[in-house]
Amino acid sequence: MKAVVYRSARHLEVEHRDPEPPGPGQLRIAVAYTGICGTDLHVYHGDMDARVGASAVIGHEMSGRVAEVGAGVTGHAVGQPVTVLPTRFCGRCVACRRGNPHICHAMNFLGVDSPGAMQSSWTVPAELVVPLPDGLPLDEAALVEPVAVAVHDVRRGRVTDADQVVVVGGGPVGVLIATVARQRGARVLLVEPDPFRRAVATGIGIDAVDPGETDVAALVDARTEGAGADVAFEVSGSAAGVGTAVDVLTTRGRLVMVAIHPQPRPVNLHRVFWRELELLGARLYQRDDMVEAVRLVASGAIPARQLISRVVPADAAASAFTALEGGGVMKVLLDWQEGDR
Amino acid sequence: MKAVVYRSARHLEVEHRDPEPPGPGQLRIAVAYTGICGTDLHVYHGDMDARVGASAVIGHEMSGRVAEVGAGVTGHAVGQPVTVLPTRFCGRCVACRRGNPHICHAMNFLGVDSPGAMQSSWTVPAELVVPLPDGLPLDEAALVEPVAVAVHDVRRGRVTDADQVVVVGGGPVGVLIATVARQRGARVLLVEPDPFRRAVATGIGIDAVDPGETDVAALVDARTEGAGADVAFEVSGSAAGVGTAVDVLTTRGRLVMVAIHPQPRPVNLHRVFWRELELLGARLYQRDDMVEAVRLVASGAIPARQLISRVVPADAAASAFTALEGGGVMKVLLDWQEGDR
Ligand SMILES: [Zn+2]
Ligand SMILES: [Zn+2]
Ligand SMILES: [Zn+2]
Ligand SMILES: [Zn+2]
Repeated sequence: MKAVVYRSARHLEVEHRDPEPPGPGQLRIAVAYTGICGTDLHVYHGDMDARVGASAVIGHEMSGRVAEVGAGVTGHAVGQPVTVLPTRFCGRCVACRRGNPHICHAMNFLGVDSPGAMQSSWTVPAELVVPLPDGLPLDEAALVEPVAVAVHDVRRGRVTDADQVVVVGGGPVGVLIATVARQRGARVLLVEPDPFRRAVATGIGIDAVDPGETDVAALVDARTEGAGADVAFEVSGSAAGVGTAVDVLTTRGRLVMVAIHPQPRPVNLHRVFWRELELLGARLYQRDDMVEAVRLVASGAIPARQLISRVVPADAAASAFTALEGGGVMKVLLDWQEGDR
Repeated sequence: MKAVVYRSARHLEVEHRDPEPPGPGQLRIAVAYTGICGTDLHVYHGDMDARVGASAVIGHEMSGRVAEVGAGVTGHAVGQPVTVLPTRFCGRCVACRRGNPHICHAMNFLGVDSPGAMQSSWTVPAELVVPLPDGLPLDEAALVEPVAVAVHDVRRGRVTDADQVVVVGGGPVGVLIATVARQRGARVLLVEPDPFRRAVATGIGIDAVDPGETDVAALVDARTEGAGADVAFEVSGSAAGVGTAVDVLTTRGRLVMVAIHPQPRPVNLHRVFWRELELLGARLYQRDDMVEAVRLVASGAIPARQLISRVVPADAAASAFTALEGGGVMKVLLDWQEGDR
């Protein structure tokens, strides 16, 4: 079988390895597709070398079929379509003890802290495997993990069908949040400077504006009779995005912090105080979010196919990473179905 | 009667005026004591000239007795001890319509937007008057308004008896928040650099540390088996205070933003994201908070007398403001009971 191996910053290799037979309680999965996400790019750029070991197999967005069932595993059969919850929690830390294992302090994130999905044959604990419905195409199913992120974020923002929502940042996660919020019945405005990303969003019926051309706060005020947005999502990772997300909110509005901000950002705390705003950090997802994500993708509520810009053979992984850096793509998938397992 | 009148920055005058007879629906109150708070100091410094008119009577923390009852007012009698809810809301804006009139967009704040409490005879709408129990000394009752702020803030932070609380900033509001949180059963740590303020806090049994000498996050970790604080209150108004309040929190911890930060502050949004923290703006109070504040002061749960550093005759108002700027005092009251009404 083959695997995408991270050697060092901007240096990936496709390596041939022996498949790992499933031990007791494990499943071996024949991987069909893997997505490349922002975290994978961070690893690729060398930003996560402290966590990612040398010769690590990366990746955590995937779909596939059960290829081999380990001893003692019940409820799974060879050929079953599946995806994987790529997080393992410790069960002992304060986050775990208080009911938030999804942000466990000793989290093992598959594809970062242990071998990931970018291999044609992936052996994982059976309890992390999430079944997919039979009719769901496996390329679309590779989007379940980022959809689970969006489901978690929308839940954290307590979005209802009475809400005006503003999503700041129109990459894959931003567009998925906009889609899930719309599916919940909210009116949604997406804010994104990149014309390609705006075009993708518009193509799936999401109202998208360029913050360089539009006074976003004024537009939201106009659409809400001066009230402002009920919920904003900061998905841009930029200082300007934080400013926009705070500025659009109504009294007691909620701001969900989704993006990673490597350095402290100036925040208008006077407005947080004056309007009694609420800022909510949101990270990863729980198993329930992933089950809901499967339901949303399978039902067509998420227009997954329109978000897949390109599918390339796994052997071309290095060039796919380079393409993502260049922009002009939304979701890029690697196809693992050719060649040996 | 006499009144403290704001002329211009750092220029207060005690002026003799005619008492205003109560119109229909109004009460005239013989003011006993008024407190001087941070907002009054802001006005005094000229920072609020855009809202405060020339020759404005300032002040909004007070106690007194009903002196005259206007036409149509029921349930009040001359001599009744009272305090006043110093906020009037519009009933039409988005905050009012959605159940948050305490942060009304067109708020009329008595003592800022209309004549305040620093006058020996104050005429106000009867619906703003809050009765006091007979046994409550009126100097202690002058603290009800800032206690209502603390009650609102503690409620916003959803403080329970299982919580470790950190209050950053030990001025009057910070000390009152610490006291109310302790009364709710929480373990409380106060962070304050000023030795006088720490001594006042320690004097009423609040554990207070100097952030210049103590690594606050390490201390909180040590006291919580590494978990961190459940709730932090930012009451310092400083950039360093914001940093401390974010740094001490446990996973899913709540940070209540109480202080006014005139400029944007750098916030560690990565930690907000990573630990799924919650930041909550908190401003003013609702009538229920004030009723609860009366109960807390009257029951002795708030050691009001120990927080009153000095009581000066109203004629000495100007020097009382100067003294507050110099530090070494917690709460300073003006006494209005001498002289003409
Ligand atoms: Zn990802
Ligand atoms: Zn854990
Ligand atoms: Zn005040
Ligand atoms: Zn209003």
